Amino acid sequence: MAEKEISKAVVARLPRYYRYLGELMEEGVERISSNELSLRMKVTASQIRQDLNNFGGFGQQGYGYNVKYLYAEIAKILGIDRQHNLIIIGAGNLGQAIANYANFEKRGFLIKGMFDVNPRLIGLIVRGVEIRSIDELETFVKENDVQIAALTIPKTKAPEIADRLVKAGVKAIWNFAHTDLNVPEDVVVENVHLSESLMRLSYRVCRIQDREEKSREKTQKKKKA
Amino acid sequence: MAEKEISKAVVARLPRYYRYLGELMEEGVERISSNELSLRMKVTASQIRQDLNNFGGFGQQGYGYNVKYLYAEIAKILGIDRQHNLIIIGAGNLGQAIANYANFEKRGFLIKGMFDVNPRLIGLIVRGVEIRSIDELETFVKENDVQIAALTIPKTKAPEIADRLVKAGVKAIWNFAHTDLNVPEDVVVENVHLSESLMRLSYRVCRIQDREEKSREKTQKKKKA
Repeated sequence: MAEKEISKAVVARLPRYYRYLGELMEEGVERISSNELSLRMKVTASQIRQDLNNFGGFGQQGYGYNVKYLYAEIAKILGIDRQHNLIIIGAGNLGQAIANYANFEKRGFLIKGMFDVNPRLIGLIVRGVEIRSIDELETFVKENDVQIAALTIPKTKAPEIADRLVKAGVKAIWNFAHTDLNVPEDVVVENVHLSESLMRLSYRVCRIQDREEKSREKTQKKKKA
Repeated sequence: MAEKEISKAVVARLPRYYRYLGELMEEGVERISSNELSLRMKVTASQIRQDLNNFGGFGQQGYGYNVKYLYAEIAKILGIDRQHNLIIIGAGNLGQAIANYANFEKRGFLIKGMFDVNPRLIGLIVRGVEIRSIDELETFVKENDVQIAALTIPKTKAPEIADRLVKAGVKAIWNFAHTDLNVPEDVVVENVHLSESLMRLSYRVCRIQDREEKSREKTQKKKKA
């Protein structure tokens, strides 16, 4: 595995390479050139070569990339060839959506447990995973070697639960709560702020609307003139 | 509103400013300096000044930013002072999680309808929104002036539904399906690829594990020596 630090931007793009390579494998494609991959992914071939050179360059001149090899190497880099034990805090719709997503397991993320405060949910089973009381959190994390916790709870509760998780030994929080978490340096937080994503979409839609309005105004002015 | 194009990176950061300003308003804070905001947001004060200068600079030397004014201006820029009609395709857990998120409505996103192919779901009501058959999609989009569609369906179905949405006049797709969509230039796609987010988290957890392992090895070598 590469020893040097890889830039955030490259890491952010790796899962997309992994997805396209997986699709190529499903299609039975064994090799692909950076040019062909460029057409599929709508990224320049030079970007692809640069990105993949970070890992020592798997491509060969005139041969292209070995799809299966590259797929396996990226899996290693992303660490999805290892097993990660995961719990979900918050067994509402979002928590259940995550629990029901079978693909996570294929990539080494094993959902060990779900937790909630709602007594009507506690004891229910979602895809073989029991919903437990949040009181059992610390014991469960320690006994099941849990590394990752998905937080799908309201933002008011998130900081307290994050503290408890860190103290219990969790190494990473996949944070869906609409707030930033303060955790020690050796704990990873990956945020998924859905409403921020929706606002970015809103911004882009409005720019298109504004442009369209302007071009309508221009056309009307021309007609009048 | 600012006429010049704002960089993607700045736009990506705006929702976070909006969130912090909203929290300040809730706390009754009327003004804030870039330095104080910098401490809260863990971003440099100069970054804050640069970002907010894109909009003509709302701050005054020695006075700081007027929180309420800045909050309202960012809302205008993001277009969340306008109303956006939204539908959700896919009424599974993820679709229902979105439908149940009341904050979206506060920001002008009105959920007009939900659609599914599952006859057991069609006719059900989620937070006042009826789940309809996907057969009604085109008529509904046109009659309800729908601009945004959230896609929470499997990737195999996503391209076909995206085509139908675009033909029916939808301007933006909030894409949760694990695939890239091909749409015309004047249609916006905002992707939320959860498994890619989880892989980025995995990458970072593994780097920490690797570092810890190395430092353990070093300690052991020292002990032996």
